Amino acid sequence: MARAHNFNAGPAGLPLAALERAQRELIEFEGTGMSIMEHSHRGKAYEAVHNEAIALTKELCGVPDGYDVLFLQGGASLQFAMVPMNFLPADKSADYVITGGWAEKAYQEAGRIGKVRVAATTEQNKKYTRIPKQEELKVDPAAAYVHYTTNNTLFGTQWHHVPDVGNVPLVADMSSDIMWAPIDVAKYSLIYAGAQKNIGPSGVVVVIVKKDFLATARKDIPVILRYATHAENNSLYNTPPTFGIYLIRNVLAVTKEMGGLAAMEKHNRKKGDLLYSAIDADPDFFRAPVEKASRSYMNIVFRLPTEELEKRFVAEATKRNMVGLAGHRSTGGIRASTYNAVSYASIEALVSFMAEFRKTAPAA
Amino acid sequence: MARAHNFNAGPAGLPLAALERAQRELIEFEGTGMSIMEHSHRGKAYEAVHNEAIALTKELCGVPDGYDVLFLQGGASLQFAMVPMNFLPADKSADYVITGGWAEKAYQEAGRIGKVRVAATTEQNKKYTRIPKQEELKVDPAAAYVHYTTNNTLFGTQWHHVPDVGNVPLVADMSSDIMWAPIDVAKYSLIYAGAQKNIGPSGVVVVIVKKDFLATARKDIPVILRYATHAENNSLYNTPPTFGIYLIRNVLAVTKEMGGLAAMEKHNRKKGDLLYSAIDADPDFFRAPVEKASRSYMNIVFRLPTEELEKRFVAEATKRNMVGLAGHRSTGGIRASTYNAVSYASIEALVSFMAEFRKTAPAA
Repeated sequence: MARAHNFNAGPAGLPLAALERAQRELIEFEGTGMSIMEHSHRGKAYEAVHNEAIALTKELCGVPDGYDVLFLQGGASLQFAMVPMNFLPADKSADYVITGGWAEKAYQEAGRIGKVRVAATTEQNKKYTRIPKQEELKVDPAAAYVHYTTNNTLFGTQWHHVPDVGNVPLVADMSSDIMWAPIDVAKYSLIYAGAQKNIGPSGVVVVIVKKDFLATARKDIPVILRYATHAENNSLYNTPPTFGIYLIRNVLAVTKEMGGLAAMEKHNRKKGDLLYSAIDADPDFFRAPVEKASRSYMNIVFRLPTEELEKRFVAEATKRNMVGLAGHRSTGGIRASTYNAVSYASIEALVSFMAEFRKTAPAA
Repeated sequence: MARAHNFNAGPAGLPLAALERAQRELIEFEGTGMSIMEHSHRGKAYEAVHNEAIALTKELCGVPDGYDVLFLQGGASLQFAMVPMNFLPADKSADYVITGGWAEKAYQEAGRIGKVRVAATTEQNKKYTRIPKQEELKVDPAAAYVHYTTNNTLFGTQWHHVPDVGNVPLVADMSSDIMWAPIDVAKYSLIYAGAQKNIGPSGVVVVIVKKDFLATARKDIPVILRYATHAENNSLYNTPPTFGIYLIRNVLAVTKEMGGLAAMEKHNRKKGDLLYSAIDADPDFFRAPVEKASRSYMNIVFRLPTEELEKRFVAEATKRNMVGLAGHRSTGGIRASTYNAVSYASIEALVSFMAEFRKTAPAA
């Protein structure tokens, strides 16, 4: 079957070249007579892959000295707990910026562990259609950290500036837009991201953490849940998800070959601009609920005049080999996730289908 | 290159048929135009794989009603923390049976979370060469649970009976021998096992937990670290490591085809008996440090007269395409890990090399 136009929200499409490399090497890795997943995590073959994945992350993101790159397990959902377990002492509180369902979950999990405070929220009638402006942010200067979510997969919003939080450590969940564009890592104390949108399969989380921040972490928690444990052991304290990290290596090698994050940004903006133009060109039929300045280049959401039409839209798109266009079960509507690996041709196909659907759809 | 004789301690060799299936389907899964790792974890294609992996685990292990099978992340090392976080209330203590390095780690991690007690230890001069006898076990009848490690990868010992702990819930780390032979699940309240020895790649942990035991778990811990969260959501609370679970499905399908766990036990005993016989046949040269009744059928450890000879043995074996024979860095010596996927032919090759090496080696 022809390769699908994959608009899944995550796990999502990966670069074909990264998958082809994995397929070629699956049983026979570099003449070793076995798969990379059959190698010891303490052997030379795997170690080289592991260190290359770390080096590529550092290179692509421009990670400055004084930061560690870690590969952990448990998804962003475990990070929701690990961040406060490590960095929220009993005598402080942490600030959370609430811009969607995942930000809410991070806030709630932290609230089970320590004291939390809302620094800003854009919730309105259970919906989040915008990113807060800098002046809406009420940061507690004594907060242990400020946590925010750079891109919101459910509602299709994305931060297009790094919030100014003064001297308070900034922590970001970049699960759904890491490496979509260049990152100014120096502004952050800790970045985490589930791999399954832009950089690999599910089952690996990349963490970029400032060593100075790490030095302030609590030590009265289980060893396995301390970031320091993993930093001190180059993410080899226990057996890492070796095949997942190998796949990240493959994806990042392709990302580098394509020109790195500056090229990714150009590619992603071009795709997003094409799709948003098509939506905006026909506002009587397609409706983009998100405030223009807060629009995401990773998850592009829009509504049709009726839910009935939305269902038909998704069904007919599926017949044309376009998958993953149904909005999240909590929000409904249409959502095209347009991560790094989604090609411009896939957006062209979608836009062309939208025009066709528009013509044949009954008047609203 | 010819497929290696893989004696790695974990990650370890996987059945070739399971890898070949993964290779065939890597880019094109069941006519969907994408890899299984590019599918949504909430879509039909992945859901079928996920549920098949659970069903195969239940079928192969004979999991009775009243138990849940979960697939989690974080390795056995995260289980070391999750078990006491969930099941060790502040007013109780937990009993640990210490039979090796991993049992020690589980005990130490639990000690950071609550009160722990040693129910038995076979440590002697930092070594563990045997499994305790039933009468050595001093179980506290009021303990929250008794934790033990069914097979000890570092020292090459294995339990050949299920300890009688009365009415105290029994918790087992089966990371290195799960599915090596039939399991009497009904004797356990919780079983956990990292997948990377007998059933899949690293990055997935299988948990088999009794519902009645689950009902007693603490609720004052982060949501993501509660077993109940994962049980209530069929291990889909957050994005699971989909490709790892897919590979487990492939491995378990092969295991079933080969006759299930009874056939596995026969196969593993035949391999172990051959290798132990070769060791025992020449006690002046090969020395098995483990008490006979405690010998492991998964990790077979032996010493040569000198460390110099051991190094040469490993080096010459490597030239013959036998990998992973060096003992753990903490113990030294030789270790042949002989998990389910290791063939009888690989053991024959090793035994034949041992005889050859013996002849050409200088007298001790």
